[in-house]
Amino acid sequence: MSRVLILGGSGFIGSAFARELASRNIEFSSLSRNQCDYTNFSAIYSMIKRTVPELVINCSGVTGTPNVDWCELHRKETIAGNVITAAAISDACYSLGVILGHISTGCIYNGERPMGAPWTEEDYPNFQFGEEPCSFYSGTKAMAEWKIAGNPLAYIWRLRLPFCEEADPKNLITKLVSYPAIYDSPKNSMSHLGECVRACVDTWDMGLKRGIYNVVNPGAMTNREIIADIIEILKPDREFDVWADKIPVLEDQVMAPRSNCVLSSKKLENAGIKLRPVHEALVETLKNYKP
Amino acid sequence: MSRVLILGGSGFIGSAFARELASRNIEFSSLSRNQCDYTNFSAIYSMIKRTVPELVINCSGVTGTPNVDWCELHRKETIAGNVITAAAISDACYSLGVILGHISTGCIYNGERPMGAPWTEEDYPNFQFGEEPCSFYSGTKAMAEWKIAGNPLAYIWRLRLPFCEEADPKNLITKLVSYPAIYDSPKNSMSHLGECVRACVDTWDMGLKRGIYNVVNPGAMTNREIIADIIEILKPDREFDVWADKIPVLEDQVMAPRSNCVLSSKKLENAGIKLRPVHEALVETLKNYKP
Repeated sequence: MSRVLILGGSGFIGSAFARELASRNIEFSSLSRNQCDYTNFSAIYSMIKRTVPELVINCSGVTGTPNVDWCELHRKETIAGNVITAAAISDACYSLGVILGHISTGCIYNGERPMGAPWTEEDYPNFQFGEEPCSFYSGTKAMAEWKIAGNPLAYIWRLRLPFCEEADPKNLITKLVSYPAIYDSPKNSMSHLGECVRACVDTWDMGLKRGIYNVVNPGAMTNREIIADIIEILKPDREFDVWADKIPVLEDQVMAPRSNCVLSSKKLENAGIKLRPVHEALVETLKNYKP
Repeated sequence: MSRVLILGGSGFIGSAFARELASRNIEFSSLSRNQCDYTNFSAIYSMIKRTVPELVINCSGVTGTPNVDWCELHRKETIAGNVITAAAISDACYSLGVILGHISTGCIYNGERPMGAPWTEEDYPNFQFGEEPCSFYSGTKAMAEWKIAGNPLAYIWRLRLPFCEEADPKNLITKLVSYPAIYDSPKNSMSHLGECVRACVDTWDMGLKRGIYNVVNPGAMTNREIIADIIEILKPDREFDVWADKIPVLEDQVMAPRSNCVLSSKKLENAGIKLRPVHEALVETLKNYKP
């Protein structure tokens, strides 16, 4: 008997949920894609039925390696991993009356919100299919949200540019330290991974109303501001003097348009769940960063 | 109690199935998209459970209006209508132990088969995501096949360029008569609609092994050959002297690559289901064509 079942449990975000649940002494099971075909409804259904969890956390998803340009070139895998999978997991949870927590992304918004102020959970995503240009990755993640929005048992947790103390190819700090040229970005929301998964589990543990939650640290930073902190605290043995107007092209001149956006964390705060201001969280994380 | 449930029943192909079942005195129900949200698993599941059919025929699908270029510009609707829908219907049928007949297309192949001879059901589709260039429409239809292939209760019926006696915007004859310029195509397989739905129902009625069936009239024709028959039999009051190397562009210079292919009808023939040779079927259809 496990109270929680993590799907995509071996990944960057799934492992963080496993650590969080362990620290709370909540019994959980963790599955990775090679143990269960997430696109196969009956496999998912049987797995959930056998495990009888109270909560399924869906951390599975295709983000592309090394980056989302990959998704432009691998549309089948991206639709399968982000849409069919999310639909099958949501349908199975709903059929069995199990609560679902689905990891989504803030990358379905881009640019300034028309009325100013950060994007809220009620705003229609402006970086998705039908709102081109968008990346193929963002299009499929928005479709997953659209599908799961019909499931009254589901939490949709939107993360954005996760960073943490452990070096990892998916960690924003690790990425910025290693990129030869840095994209000179506008301000973006960011999510401290540990705080973020704690907040997600809290929404369920506190029995908050199901629906969408932006799970980001309050505030926003540009890449130049982040690099300034990295230089001051990590003192890396390199120069950061190459700034790019655009993300470098991966291959075949296929480049996904990128999202830059600031999400509101007010809904979470109003529910009593507070994350540290983003600059404070980044400085603390850098002080404890293990390269 | 209905023995058969048709989804997408009000469309061009769905209506043909309704006529065929009625002519056989097989009780059926027919649903259209505005009566049931096909992307909603629980709605589909409840509907099938309530109807208790022996067979569900999925004729729902997005082909684009006026043509598949539309799908390039409407990726959300295309993924929803061709992938999420097909997955939900297949998963619901499998969960309830109901046989599924899924309408697919030959448009997931393009060009000559490497070893010559027509494409068989065993050949890997060469006009789909991962085998670019392909159309977005073809990519999603191939993904539906890929998903449904895992359902042992499913027939996949591949049609190609359907034509029939009644004028209809989806009828190949109606299209060719009305296009200002005709695409000078290589040879293609075609499906006489009435024969084709009869053959599909036969595969189920005869209890044939589930799996993929190409449901096309034997043989193949170019657009020039079809137009020659149209001129001779329909004697339309217009000239057919404008031939295009390419399909005209719809809007915004977005044009989906088109599929041209010849499918083998041997598997169906070997199972004892014969369709008329394509030229004979076309000539008879033109003689009875109602503009």
